[in-house]
Amino acid sequence: MTYLEKEIRSQPEVVEKLLRLEAKNILKIADSLKRADIQTVFVVARGSSDNAGLYGKYLFGSRNRLVTTLATPSLFTLYKRPPNLKGCLILAISQSGASDDLCQVVAEGKRQGSRAVVITNTIKSPLAGLADDVISLHAGPERSVAATKTYTAQLMALAMLSAGLSGRARDQDALQKVVEFQRQALKDSAAISAMAQRYRYMERLAVIGRGYNYATAFELSLKLKELAYLTAEPSSSADFRHGPIAIVEQGYPVLLIAPKGKTLADMRQLVESLEARRAELLIISDDRKILSRARTGLPIKPGLPEWLSPLVSVIPGQLFSMYLAAARDCPLDKPRGLSKVTSTK
Amino acid sequence: MTYLEKEIRSQPEVVEKLLRLEAKNILKIADSLKRADIQTVFVVARGSSDNAGLYGKYLFGSRNRLVTTLATPSLFTLYKRPPNLKGCLILAISQSGASDDLCQVVAEGKRQGSRAVVITNTIKSPLAGLADDVISLHAGPERSVAATKTYTAQLMALAMLSAGLSGRARDQDALQKVVEFQRQALKDSAAISAMAQRYRYMERLAVIGRGYNYATAFELSLKLKELAYLTAEPSSSADFRHGPIAIVEQGYPVLLIAPKGKTLADMRQLVESLEARRAELLIISDDRKILSRARTGLPIKPGLPEWLSPLVSVIPGQLFSMYLAAARDCPLDKPRGLSKVTSTK
Repeated sequence: MTYLEKEIRSQPEVVEKLLRLEAKNILKIADSLKRADIQTVFVVARGSSDNAGLYGKYLFGSRNRLVTTLATPSLFTLYKRPPNLKGCLILAISQSGASDDLCQVVAEGKRQGSRAVVITNTIKSPLAGLADDVISLHAGPERSVAATKTYTAQLMALAMLSAGLSGRARDQDALQKVVEFQRQALKDSAAISAMAQRYRYMERLAVIGRGYNYATAFELSLKLKELAYLTAEPSSSADFRHGPIAIVEQGYPVLLIAPKGKTLADMRQLVESLEARRAELLIISDDRKILSRARTGLPIKPGLPEWLSPLVSVIPGQLFSMYLAAARDCPLDKPRGLSKVTSTK
Repeated sequence: MTYLEKEIRSQPEVVEKLLRLEAKNILKIADSLKRADIQTVFVVARGSSDNAGLYGKYLFGSRNRLVTTLATPSLFTLYKRPPNLKGCLILAISQSGASDDLCQVVAEGKRQGSRAVVITNTIKSPLAGLADDVISLHAGPERSVAATKTYTAQLMALAMLSAGLSGRARDQDALQKVVEFQRQALKDSAAISAMAQRYRYMERLAVIGRGYNYATAFELSLKLKELAYLTAEPSSSADFRHGPIAIVEQGYPVLLIAPKGKTLADMRQLVESLEARRAELLIISDDRKILSRARTGLPIKPGLPEWLSPLVSVIPGQLFSMYLAAARDCPLDKPRGLSKVTSTK
């Protein structure tokens, strides 16, 4: 079994461990953040971690009422003209904790007197060394270049932090449910492997999610690029209507992440527009009705609150990306031209 | 001549008019914003206007030290759980001023007591009616579905606002130079038309910019999608190395926007990695050296400060998109499936 497959399959275990080992630490951090006067969460991350940050943008915005922004590291590293970070919590997310550009952003935040929290899989890292508080992912070494288990662990760390900030007991209960839903999602792998064959010669596709699952669209797009060398274009359903939909002609593949919740009606409307253009629909959902519209349906178990759905909805997409990469004879653990730690300035 | 071509060609005139007619109003707005205690700029926009907002993120961050974030309208419209906007300037950008979702975000900002500025081409619009201050683009009706003149006018309005906030006289001088550089960029259209033929059967490409021109990558990607029905994937050079570069094989087309400035060294490094993979390079730049590495070079006149370069670097890309769409027999003024005002919730 490849590292990639092992790591995809280990996700429930990793999330369970994270819930067990970091709950206290995260509640402590959340409590002290509540006492600080945080106006804005300033997320700094790259690659899959940046996609996790995008989930954080919706999570902290809607559930903690915190304006959240994704940093523009070049303002710190290339232009040397960083913004004023007064009232910002610097929240760095990195598997390796080794990226020099993230370190520069956090160091500038500290210089300006901001509070810095780092979410990382490597607590003995330069990035962790700069932080006021460190949230460890406890995910074990990630050997596949394409991040999977650390991505969902990052989502869980963010969800735990958000639940800690909200202080609602039912949020804590909801967190505990995730593991079981992830286990269930992994059970469909044989069916997904069979379905992936159909897309052996696909070259490009659109990947669409909205709200909490906007991040899932970005993350699955990245997996499809890294693993299967596809041109995958992530978008929200709203943005897609503003131009990109012009691309869609008969048979154009569109992968939609459309779990139940506040965004489902909007996704359903988009499905109608796409059907009118005779697009090929691939749909990840826990809603039977929308799944029935798909050429390729990737079902997940219903019942998880929408705000936690990205922790589960990404899994059929990870499996699909892996099996598709295998069908295309791409190397699964080390895609061409990539290394585990990417150095950027 | 199509509306699209007329509107592309009218850009220097539109920007000149904007500089003339709105300078006083924008300085007045900037003065009153300086007195208010603005911590964060909260940009709300869709489509091309959202790409203009991305330019604003770099502009206000680096030149005015303001943390800037792009709104997530679904938190307001679908989830009905907007963040706390205390200390935020709500900055809405819209050609039509008619989008219901933008109106909802601005209305919520006003309800929370925030200041709202609207940049629009339609001063008698619902959105303008909600604002404390309106910046008019004076661009005249935009008849082509694909936005061109209103995009560069929006960039100019943002640059004027930023220069007003900085209060530096040399910034004001620099603004005046833009028109001449835009005129020059339009002169190369015959050469660009000839070069576009080569890409008649291209289906997908990557579009890369960094810093101020990260927005240009998004905007040109959108033009190529809308007009020529290409799968165009925008990215920063930094993010591209974190995974998407795996797609690149011999002949894979990559369009780089790489004008002189703080980001050029990084773009040059990326060119080397892309050459090693034997990608097909299309480069927009005012730097001869990097242009010499391109299979298809799209030169712009050197001498404009980097922070204003997006107002000029986008023009060869607009022309290229238009001529490529014509080569592919796509309708230029009304791409399939699009309308000028897109309604989103």
